[in-house]
Amino acid sequence: MFNEDFKTAWQKRFSSEPPSEPFDPLFLRHRSVRDYSDREIPESTIQALVGAAQSAATSSNLQLWSVISIQNPELREQLAVAAADQRQVRSAPWFFAFLADHNRLRIAAQSVGENADGLDYKEFFTMAIIDVALAAERMVCAAESMGLSICYIGAMRNDPARIAELLNLPDGTFCPFGLCVGYPIEDATSDIKPRLAQDAVWFKERYPDGIDLAEYDDRMTAFYESQEMKADVTWSMRSGRRVDNHHLTGREVLKSWLESRGFSKR
Amino acid sequence: MFNEDFKTAWQKRFSSEPPSEPFDPLFLRHRSVRDYSDREIPESTIQALVGAAQSAATSSNLQLWSVISIQNPELREQLAVAAADQRQVRSAPWFFAFLADHNRLRIAAQSVGENADGLDYKEFFTMAIIDVALAAERMVCAAESMGLSICYIGAMRNDPARIAELLNLPDGTFCPFGLCVGYPIEDATSDIKPRLAQDAVWFKERYPDGIDLAEYDDRMTAFYESQEMKADVTWSMRSGRRVDNHHLTGREVLKSWLESRGFSKR
Repeated sequence: MFNEDFKTAWQKRFSSEPPSEPFDPLFLRHRSVRDYSDREIPESTIQALVGAAQSAATSSNLQLWSVISIQNPELREQLAVAAADQRQVRSAPWFFAFLADHNRLRIAAQSVGENADGLDYKEFFTMAIIDVALAAERMVCAAESMGLSICYIGAMRNDPARIAELLNLPDGTFCPFGLCVGYPIEDATSDIKPRLAQDAVWFKERYPDGIDLAEYDDRMTAFYESQEMKADVTWSMRSGRRVDNHHLTGREVLKSWLESRGFSKR
Repeated sequence: MFNEDFKTAWQKRFSSEPPSEPFDPLFLRHRSVRDYSDREIPESTIQALVGAAQSAATSSNLQLWSVISIQNPELREQLAVAAADQRQVRSAPWFFAFLADHNRLRIAAQSVGENADGLDYKEFFTMAIIDVALAAERMVCAAESMGLSICYIGAMRNDPARIAELLNLPDGTFCPFGLCVGYPIEDATSDIKPRLAQDAVWFKERYPDGIDLAEYDDRMTAFYESQEMKADVTWSMRSGRRVDNHHLTGREVLKSWLESRGFSKR
């Protein structure tokens, strides 16, 4: 399943003529999957996948990230409740909390008499978020290449204090997202989602003065209809509502909470 | 070149017994490459690679990122000067400035009468950095799968105001990193770099109380020696110095600069 060829995947993504095929279409096929089969994933496979994550680029080899796998059902239940009650946090064969992690490097620095005060700067928060996202996405690509499916859980940011309590997180660590991993069920219906036209995302030489989004609104409306989802609001309307200041689902505390944990203090 | 098998790549990374091979070793083989051959990369290949980037997961399908390709030699020169004078910014066959981008979504929201004030929150800065890093790393995996090599340029954060000026970046956009892409030269010497042992990065159920880093210091010292690099300081010493508060290379302005551009204001 989920084995579209390059041309088909491209057309689902962009409804445009595909370029010649320079790489495996797996890199175009990503979709979030929330329902997994019972097929187990052995720990040795997870070990390899974490090895892929660790093989991602990392600024100055600082490796400002960590990952916690959570398999205990009670702990999964508590995490799911904290993360918008998403069923896949409970049911995924493997669940990971990815962490931006300054703690380990602070330990290393202090062991050699350095104060590590630079970690207080926003620069190092930004760096840790980049590091952890690069690591996670390399793991995701490796997982998808072997037929696994995934779902990122951004709702791990809904209640950062509760997540920190549940996972014993020290100062200088923060969970920006979780990751569910499993084999998809046989009749999984998740489809490749259309994305913005390339000329609205990829610019040449300089940022443009205008960007056309009407074409994407039309394409997404057709997609919602094809998926039997509500199609009476456009992508611009959905997305605009998502970023008004009434839908932050707890995340409005992020700035003050992160500063209290030592991130982005200056 | 750069075609280590799974076992070899794993041993270079971890000096430990590899797990069984569940996926292509390309996901373990990443190294930064700074010298590229003259072999050209056609624009259709770049189009496909940007398509891979766009296929990465993105929070709520908001797609809070963009990418600018810069091929003009004068502009490359100016960017290189702003980014720690790194030669590969000048010489790479393709160079990309990846952007955290709130601007496009603000345009969409305002076109339907939404104020998009939520974008002022740190939550949406964090989300945009995650989005752009996931996109870039999927592009990198696709590029490496076809024999290309890459180098991320974090020094694009050294002078954010200058980068914004050079690339015509509007409020609500920020370049967290650049990316060089090209075929490696035939005698490229870049090797797979050892990473922290898995038990220092991957934790089970909860964050641990102690982390052993001495083993990694020893392994990195052996690596520096094998690469004929200075091996008289350990990884902990190098990394500790990197995060003291004297090596921010301009990036100490990031918090105030980002807030002035509309990011993380609250």
